[in-house]
Amino acid sequence: MERMSACLCLVFLFLTVVAEAKYPPGDTLLPQNLDHFSFQPESYRIFHQKYLISSHFWRKGGPIFVYTGNEGDIEWFASNTGFMLDIAPKFQALLVFIEHRFYGESKPHNLAKTMGYLNSQQALADYAILIRSLKQNLSSEASPVVVFGGSYGGMLAAWFRLKYPHITIGALASSAPILQFDKIVPSSSFYDVVSQDFKDASLNCFEVIKKSWRELEVFSTMKDGLQELSKKFRTCKDLHAVYLASRWLETAFTDTAMVNYPTPANFMAPLPAYPVEEMCKIIDRFPLEASNLDRAFAAASLYYNYSGSENCFDIENQTDPHGLNGWYWQACTEMVMPISCSNQSMFQPFEYDEKVDQEDCLKEYGVKPRPHWITTEFGGHRIEMVLKRFGSNIIFSNGMQDPWSREGVLKNISSSIIALVTKKAGAHHTDLRAATKEDPEWLKEQRRQEVAEIEKWISEYYSDLRQEEQAK
Amino acid sequence: MERMSACLCLVFLFLTVVAEAKYPPGDTLLPQNLDHFSFQPESYRIFHQKYLISSHFWRKGGPIFVYTGNEGDIEWFASNTGFMLDIAPKFQALLVFIEHRFYGESKPHNLAKTMGYLNSQQALADYAILIRSLKQNLSSEASPVVVFGGSYGGMLAAWFRLKYPHITIGALASSAPILQFDKIVPSSSFYDVVSQDFKDASLNCFEVIKKSWRELEVFSTMKDGLQELSKKFRTCKDLHAVYLASRWLETAFTDTAMVNYPTPANFMAPLPAYPVEEMCKIIDRFPLEASNLDRAFAAASLYYNYSGSENCFDIENQTDPHGLNGWYWQACTEMVMPISCSNQSMFQPFEYDEKVDQEDCLKEYGVKPRPHWITTEFGGHRIEMVLKRFGSNIIFSNGMQDPWSREGVLKNISSSIIALVTKKAGAHHTDLRAATKEDPEWLKEQRRQEVAEIEKWISEYYSDLRQEEQAK
Repeated sequence: MERMSACLCLVFLFLTVVAEAKYPPGDTLLPQNLDHFSFQPESYRIFHQKYLISSHFWRKGGPIFVYTGNEGDIEWFASNTGFMLDIAPKFQALLVFIEHRFYGESKPHNLAKTMGYLNSQQALADYAILIRSLKQNLSSEASPVVVFGGSYGGMLAAWFRLKYPHITIGALASSAPILQFDKIVPSSSFYDVVSQDFKDASLNCFEVIKKSWRELEVFSTMKDGLQELSKKFRTCKDLHAVYLASRWLETAFTDTAMVNYPTPANFMAPLPAYPVEEMCKIIDRFPLEASNLDRAFAAASLYYNYSGSENCFDIENQTDPHGLNGWYWQACTEMVMPISCSNQSMFQPFEYDEKVDQEDCLKEYGVKPRPHWITTEFGGHRIEMVLKRFGSNIIFSNGMQDPWSREGVLKNISSSIIALVTKKAGAHHTDLRAATKEDPEWLKEQRRQEVAEIEKWISEYYSDLRQEEQAK
Repeated sequence: MERMSACLCLVFLFLTVVAEAKYPPGDTLLPQNLDHFSFQPESYRIFHQKYLISSHFWRKGGPIFVYTGNEGDIEWFASNTGFMLDIAPKFQALLVFIEHRFYGESKPHNLAKTMGYLNSQQALADYAILIRSLKQNLSSEASPVVVFGGSYGGMLAAWFRLKYPHITIGALASSAPILQFDKIVPSSSFYDVVSQDFKDASLNCFEVIKKSWRELEVFSTMKDGLQELSKKFRTCKDLHAVYLASRWLETAFTDTAMVNYPTPANFMAPLPAYPVEEMCKIIDRFPLEASNLDRAFAAASLYYNYSGSENCFDIENQTDPHGLNGWYWQACTEMVMPISCSNQSMFQPFEYDEKVDQEDCLKEYGVKPRPHWITTEFGGHRIEMVLKRFGSNIIFSNGMQDPWSREGVLKNISSSIIALVTKKAGAHHTDLRAATKEDPEWLKEQRRQEVAEIEKWISEYYSDLRQEEQAK
C-alpha cells in the first residue's frame, strides 16, 4: 500500500505548512461572490472557498503550481496528484490546490436555493480571483502560474488556460474529456474502451462479463429471485430490484478500468496494480462449469473488497465518500455528456435519449439542461482548426486504456498545444499520481515530457519578463 | 450632409432586406436567457434580442460579418459603421448587427429588477449563442465569422475573439479602450488628449477654453449670476446651478474631440469636417476684447447648433437619444474606468476617487462596483507579454486624436495581433465610417490594411477547412 502512505504524506505536508505562522489556517478560506457574472443583489452573497497551500519548496517569486479542483473534496485530489509534489522541488514551486465551489467544505449556506451557481464558468472565475488575490497577498504578482488538473479538473485546467491566459501561462490537462459534448465524439466511446480493456486482458473475461447480464436478468422472473440474488451477492440487506445488482457490477468494471493503474493505488477504492488484469485472472481461474454471473460477481468483489474485510455488500446504498452529489446536478445543467452503450461492448446496450435525459433532470432537480452550452462557451467542434491558430501551452495527456480517453484531444494541435498519448497503456490521469519505483517506462517518459514542456513555458515566461523590464 | 444620406441608405438596405420573405422581420428577434452563467430559476427568464441582417451581397456559405453592438440602439451603430457595408461586396459577406442586451429594443420586461444581468460577459455569450443559432438556421455552419466593433463595441469584438475563438476567426476592434481599467494607463489620458487636440488646432483656442472656467465660476458669486449666465448661454429655462453650464461646455469639447472626423458626419451630433478646428476658428476669430467665456460658449454652440435652428439651449436636460442610460449602470458595476483631469489639460482639474465613485454608485443604483473584475476576466495588465504567445487575428485600430486612444493597444503584439495607429490624426473609430471621396490618405490606407488582414484571416480559414476536409 505504498500509494496510501504517499497520499497521507502529501496531506500531512499541507497541514504542516498550513499550520506555519506564514499561512495560518484562516488564510485557506477565501470569501467569493456566489455569482461573478451578474450584479443582482443575490450575486453578492458569499461562500468560503477552501484551498491548500504549501510553500515548502518555494523560492519566493518562483512559479506557482495550481490544481484546479474538480467534483469532490480537495484533499482527495491533492492526495492523488503526487506529481505536483514530486516536481515542486525542481521548479522551486509554490503548491496550491483549490477546492471547486459547492464541493467539500466550499459550500454556501442554503445549498438547495443556490445550486444554480454551481457550474464550470463560475468555478473558473473563482480560480482567477483566488490566484490573483493570493499573488497579491504574497507580493508575488510576477510569478508564473501553471495549472494542473485531471478528469473534470483537467477540463477546467485546459479551459482556464484558454479563457484566462493572463492568469496562467500553461495547463497540464490530464484525461480531460473536453470533447464529450454535443455529439463531437461517438457517445459509445466510454463503454467501448472499458470493454476493450477487459478484452485486452482476456477475451474469455470479456465474454464472461458480456454473458453475465442475461444470467442476472433471470432473477427478475424467478420465484424468490431477489432473495436468491441477495444471497449470491452477499448483500447486507435484501435487494428490492435486480437492476441494483447490475449497476453495482457495472460500476465495479467501469471504475476499475478508470483506475487500472500500473501500481497499487487508492483513488476510487484500494486496488492492486493493474486491477483489470486481476479481475480477469479471477474470472479465468474459475472452473469451467461455473456460472458467468458468479465469475462476474467474484471479479467485482475485488473492487469492493480488496482488503477482504467486508462481510456483506451494501449494494443498494452506494455511498460516495467524496461528495460527488454536485456532479449529478452539473450533469443536468451544463455537463451534458451523451453516453450510450453499443452491442459491441460487454455491457447491456442502451441508446442515448436526450429527451428522456431532459425529463429526468426536470423531475429530479427541476432544471432544464443546456446541451449545447458547453460547446458554445468553450468550443470543441473542429478543435484542431480553431486552436491551431489560437492559444498555446496546453498539454492534453491521455492513456488510451482510460475509458475517458477517446473524448480527449489525442493529436498535437500546434507546437505548444500538444497531446501526450500512450497507446495500450494508461488509465485515468495516471501521470498525475506520485512516482513510484515500479512505474513503467512509458509513464516515466510521459512525465519527463510534461516536465520538459512546463520548463519551456516557465523559461519562456521569465525571458519575456526580462525583455519587458529591459524595454521599460 | 453626405454622411446623413449614407446612414439612411444603410438602414434602408437593412429594412429592405429584413422585409424580404427570406428573413421576415420576426426573425430578427432571438429569445435569450437572461443569465447564461447560472442555472437559478430566474436565469431562465428570457428577453428578445434584436439584430439587423442583410444578405444583399452574400454568397451562401461565404463569410459573415458581425457587429458586436454596444451601449445604444443598434440602428445607431449600423448607421455609423458603413465600412462593413462598403467591404461586404468584395467579401460577398452576410452582414449582421446585433443589439447589446438592455439597450434599444433588446430590453427585458421588468428592467428595474433585472439590471444585474446587464454586463459584458452576458453580452458576449448572447453573441455566441445568436451567431451559432443564425449559422444553423442558414445551414451555413462552416462560414467564417469576423466581428467588428467600435469603442465599447470594439472592446467586445476583441474580447469576443479572445474568449470565443471557436465562433469568430478574427476581430476588428476600433478605438477600443481595453486598458482603461485598474490603473493600467494613467487616468488623465482622456482629458489630456482632448486638450492636445485643441492645442494642436490652435494654442490660443486651448488657452481661451482653459481660462473660461474661472470666468464661469464668477457667476456663482454674482448677484443674479444664474440669471445673467442663463441669458449669456441662451438657455430655454433659467439655470439652477453654474456647474450645469460647465458640464454643457465640457461635453461639447470632449464629444467634438471624439468625433473630429475629416468629413462632415452625424454620430453624436451633426457637425462639419474637422469640427475641433472649426471650433477653434470660431474662438480665434473673436475680437481681442471678447471674454474667454463668450468665445467658449460660441465654440460649444457649434456642437449643439450646427444647423443654426436652435433658438435656445436646453442645458439642464441633456437628453440622450440613443438610450445610453444603461452605460451608467455598467460604469457602476464592471466598467469601472478611472478618469481624472490633470492641470496640464484645458479643463478644471480633478482627481479620481475610487471611494467616492463607490459611494455614488451605491447611492444611485444600490450596487457595489467591482473595480478589478474586468482585468481579472479579460486581462489587460502586461497585455503584450500575455498575447504575444496567445491568441491571434485581432486588429486594434486607433487614431491618436481620439480621446480614447491612449487606453487602447497601440503596438503590434504579434504577427496577427496588430495595432493600426494613425498619429496626429483619427478620431473615435473613424475607420468604421463609410468611405467618402474626401477621405484623407491615412484613412484610406488604414482601411486598406484592415481589408488586407481580414482577407488573410478568411483565406487562411478556407485553406484550413479544405485541408481538414481532405484529411477526413
